Amino acid sequence: MAKVNVGKKILSANEAHALKNSELLTQHRNRCFNMISSPGSGKTTLLVRTICDLAGAVKIGVIEGDIQTDIDARRIRATNAPAIQIITEGACHLSAAQVHQALQKLPLDNLEIVFIENVGNLVCPSSFELGEDGKIVVLSVAEGDDKPAKYPAIFAKSKVLLVNKIDLLAVGGLIDFDLERVKADARRLNKGIAIFPISARTGEGMAAWYDWLKGQLAKA
Amino acid sequence: MAKVNVGKKILSANEAHALKNSELLTQHRNRCFNMISSPGSGKTTLLVRTICDLAGAVKIGVIEGDIQTDIDARRIRATNAPAIQIITEGACHLSAAQVHQALQKLPLDNLEIVFIENVGNLVCPSSFELGEDGKIVVLSVAEGDDKPAKYPAIFAKSKVLLVNKIDLLAVGGLIDFDLERVKADARRLNKGIAIFPISARTGEGMAAWYDWLKGQLAKA
Repeated sequence: MAKVNVGKKILSANEAHALKNSELLTQHRNRCFNMISSPGSGKTTLLVRTICDLAGAVKIGVIEGDIQTDIDARRIRATNAPAIQIITEGACHLSAAQVHQALQKLPLDNLEIVFIENVGNLVCPSSFELGEDGKIVVLSVAEGDDKPAKYPAIFAKSKVLLVNKIDLLAVGGLIDFDLERVKADARRLNKGIAIFPISARTGEGMAAWYDWLKGQLAKA
Repeated sequence: MAKVNVGKKILSANEAHALKNSELLTQHRNRCFNMISSPGSGKTTLLVRTICDLAGAVKIGVIEGDIQTDIDARRIRATNAPAIQIITEGACHLSAAQVHQALQKLPLDNLEIVFIENVGNLVCPSSFELGEDGKIVVLSVAEGDDKPAKYPAIFAKSKVLLVNKIDLLAVGGLIDFDLERVKADARRLNKGIAIFPISARTGEGMAAWYDWLKGQLAKA
C-alpha cells in the first residue's frame, strides 16, 4: 500500500499560498514581517507603540492572529491603523491561506509595512511560511534567558530578535536575566540576527528598532 | 475514494497510550499531574521549590518535556528527585507514548506524585491526554491578564491555575495585571478550577498549593 506523507503535503499547500502572498505584497511594494513569540511577550503593545511613534513617517497595517477574541485587533484599530483579525478557533499557528484572505481586506496601496502578529506560540508558527520578508521573534525578559537554547528553531529563522520588557531589569534582584547569554545563544544559531533590547512600555531602545524598520523600507 | 480522518486516528492512538499510562500509575498508587504553560512561566522553578519544600513529606518524580536540551531535567535532579528528560526534537507537545517510555524509567514504587512538565506551549499540549489525573496550567503575571480569554482551552481543562510571579506585582506600576479579571475569566470557562496566586521565587502563596497537592494524595 502506498504511503502518503501528509506532513509534506500540508507544508507544500501552505508554501504555494505563501508564494501568492509574497507576489501580492511585492506588487503593492509592501514589506511584511511575521512576529512570533510566546503568549504575553508584548507583541501587541510593541505594535501599538511602533504605529504611534512612526505615524506620519511609515504607513503600517496589521494582521492579527488569535485563537479566540478580537482583543488585539481592537487595540491596533484604536491607533487608526487598519487591522484584520484572524481567529483560528484553536489552531496553534496562522496559515498562508488565512493570511491571503486577510491581505485582500487590507488597503495595501496605502501601506508600506504589513505586520502579521502570529498566534502566541514559540514553537509551531516557526514552521509555516506566510510569504513574509522576514520573521521577528519577541522575547520578554520575564521568560528567562534560556529560551534561545530551549526553542532554537524560531531564533535560527528570524531576521530580528526584540528582547522586550527590559524595564523589568531596572528593578534590582527582581528578574535573573543575562542579556549577553541570550545574544550569544541567538548568534550561535543565527550569525546575522539583529538584536534590539527594548521596552515597548517605556520606549527605551525603540529608536534602534525604528531605524532598522526604516532601513527595510528603503530596500522595498 | 475513501477519506481517512488522520487527525482522529492520531488522537485515538494517543488515547490508547494515555489509558495504559493511567493504568500503570494506578497500579503503583501514583498521582500524576500534567503541567502546561507558555515558555518561561516558571514551571521548573515551581517544581524545584515544591520538591524541596515537600522533601520528607511527599515523594515526587518528574518527567521533563523539552524541544531541545536537558537543562530542566538537570535542574530537577539537583534536588535529588528522579527526573526523566524527553527531548521532542521540534515537536510542540508530549505524546502519551513518549510519557509511557519515561514512566517505565521512573522508580514508581518509591513515588507518590509524578509531575509531567510539558513543552512550553499554551496551545497544543492541551489537546493530548497523557494519562494524568489532572492538568495544571501556570500563568506568569508578566504574560498579562487577558490569557484565559485568548487561550481558553487549557484554562477550561485544568484542575488548577497557578498564577505565578506575583512578587512582580509588589513593585508598583511595573506590570498591569488584574488578578480578579483572570479569576473571573478562568471560572467562566471552568467553574471548579482551583486558583492559587503564588511566587515560586519568594515562596508567597505556596502553602495553599501544597495543601491542595497533599489533599490529592489522600484520595489516591
